[in-house]
Amino acid sequence: MEVSPPGTIPYPVLCGRDPGSALATVWQRRWKRVAVVADHTTEAMFANSIEAGLRALGCEVLRCTFTPGEASKTRVTKAAIEDAMLAAGFDRRDCVVALGGGIVLDVAGFVAATFMRGIAHVNVATTLLAQVDAAIGGKTAINTAAGKNLIGALHHPRAVLLDLGALELLPADELRCGLAEAIKHGVLSDAALFAALEHWAANRSDLRPPDELIRRCVEIKAEVVEADDRDQGIRHILNYGHTVAHAVELASGHATPHGQAVAIGMVVEARLACRAGNFPPADVDRLARLLRDVGLPVEPPCSFAEARVYFASDKKTEAGVVRCAIPARIGHTEADPQGRWARPVSLSALEGAWKGTA
Amino acid sequence: MEVSPPGTIPYPVLCGRDPGSALATVWQRRWKRVAVVADHTTEAMFANSIEAGLRALGCEVLRCTFTPGEASKTRVTKAAIEDAMLAAGFDRRDCVVALGGGIVLDVAGFVAATFMRGIAHVNVATTLLAQVDAAIGGKTAINTAAGKNLIGALHHPRAVLLDLGALELLPADELRCGLAEAIKHGVLSDAALFAALEHWAANRSDLRPPDELIRRCVEIKAEVVEADDRDQGIRHILNYGHTVAHAVELASGHATPHGQAVAIGMVVEARLACRAGNFPPADVDRLARLLRDVGLPVEPPCSFAEARVYFASDKKTEAGVVRCAIPARIGHTEADPQGRWARPVSLSALEGAWKGTA
Repeated sequence: MEVSPPGTIPYPVLCGRDPGSALATVWQRRWKRVAVVADHTTEAMFANSIEAGLRALGCEVLRCTFTPGEASKTRVTKAAIEDAMLAAGFDRRDCVVALGGGIVLDVAGFVAATFMRGIAHVNVATTLLAQVDAAIGGKTAINTAAGKNLIGALHHPRAVLLDLGALELLPADELRCGLAEAIKHGVLSDAALFAALEHWAANRSDLRPPDELIRRCVEIKAEVVEADDRDQGIRHILNYGHTVAHAVELASGHATPHGQAVAIGMVVEARLACRAGNFPPADVDRLARLLRDVGLPVEPPCSFAEARVYFASDKKTEAGVVRCAIPARIGHTEADPQGRWARPVSLSALEGAWKGTA
Repeated sequence: MEVSPPGTIPYPVLCGRDPGSALATVWQRRWKRVAVVADHTTEAMFANSIEAGLRALGCEVLRCTFTPGEASKTRVTKAAIEDAMLAAGFDRRDCVVALGGGIVLDVAGFVAATFMRGIAHVNVATTLLAQVDAAIGGKTAINTAAGKNLIGALHHPRAVLLDLGALELLPADELRCGLAEAIKHGVLSDAALFAALEHWAANRSDLRPPDELIRRCVEIKAEVVEADDRDQGIRHILNYGHTVAHAVELASGHATPHGQAVAIGMVVEARLACRAGNFPPADVDRLARLLRDVGLPVEPPCSFAEARVYFASDKKTEAGVVRCAIPARIGHTEADPQGRWARPVSLSALEGAWKGTA
């Protein structure tokens, strides 16, 4: 598979169970030094074998690691990695390998985006969430005290490796977070994918979806990114569920993980879509059932009154107006008559949907 | 004048003496909030009038200032501006106005490059150096302890205003620094500009070059940026003089200002070009004479032995090989037979040129 965003070098996406060998097939000889960025968890699980592969390719390896978790996604972590790379003599022809889930990929990608005004990076995604979402599309960022992903850059990787074998080691809650985004891709643009996920969820033995469904999610993400690399239009649909998720995460003090918040957000925003865009009520029920089948929550863990203040700080909010990207029905999304993919919504409509009155 | 780098929104460049009015002609209605970034010097001289103009356009203005000088070009300064913008509720539709010389433009542009993954900015250049160089082309950066401009982004402004009236207030040494870059443009690609600068310098009453020569420098910079926005090829010629300048600045502990270092670098690299590329010795003499005529130095202030170690940390240095962008003669530059605009050079050749033996 290949992703070709307009104006950017196309890059391969490889799915497999041997990322060390896959890395050799995408490696460019000019990348002499490589910073392997990981958190302590992915370091312990994957760094040695990846680095052995890189050394076999003749690279000098610098390992840069940090404490797992959202609290590490800071300017301080970024600066520490940069300073280590500068001290090791990295130049513009060198490379970053991001090894882990969304947090590692976001930080490592942002380091690559601004190191000497941009160097190459390769994403090795080891969580389902990163595989179906963060690894592709070039969005990189860190958090600040004011909120998540507020400082960042659009900087595409040169190659993406999805380590499907790593999913066998992934905790159930992290698999569920990835499933929320996978289900989102089905709701947004592929009724057949949604139906396949329903069929799998009703008959599943564990929480790892079949490889071909993961691949289909990656294809959908790639198609959206190719159509709107710069996040000016259709790419907004990927924010489906995320306006509400953002508020849920903040109102819960991040006690609700991102994937769970997205699951809740998709249901609340689907109810909103019933009112605003004729989204079929039966599709809301199908969505909630599938989410429950994989163990994801579908109702907000707090009251609308507690969450209300956090809508203002969403990045999609412009001039105080909250926006939601909402599908027309399961498998299909379209812009509103003004051509907007993320439409303005009123707080009162949001409140109704939050409380379950579509 | 307009700059149209490939894949980027074309942007106007306006030269004049009333930047407040010029700002109104390029302003976009969607920019509701604006962060005016300045150092304390440019704040005192220009901020009130610029801000009055912005308020008249209906904007909410946030003033962000810092201590003048290279020591402010840090991650800490960038973060402080970002945090102030976040606290003031800036969103992706808002704007940064950079008001000052190269340091202010580099920092403010980098803030805009990574604020919510990139927002609009307008450069108001108040020094000759910034007008003929930094204001156009989208290069933004901060320094780290390891060196200058090591962390940054390519992020083009939405408009550039050159305040030619501000040059009347500019100290002579700062005018000379700008003249070094203006002369560089002549050497690189316009023999007529070089000759016009010679004629002006021989008859000048002060250090402010005629408006039309400034405009011609801007055109040359714009042409190079349009041909090679991503700094992959011909844009490297703008680094003429800068490999040696970089080493001179570091060896002098930044006691030699950038423009003086570039003047010295151009002469040393022209001598190198005599050996490497048949650059005419008579052109070296013309170059040194013009630089002296405007009061710029032409000989290194330190020995090659003292500077030698600093060539390794130049951003153009790749795999330990030092590179210089060198012209063929006054007014013309071409790539080497391998298509490289910044060619590998040996330290022994550099040493010979440094010592004045071409």
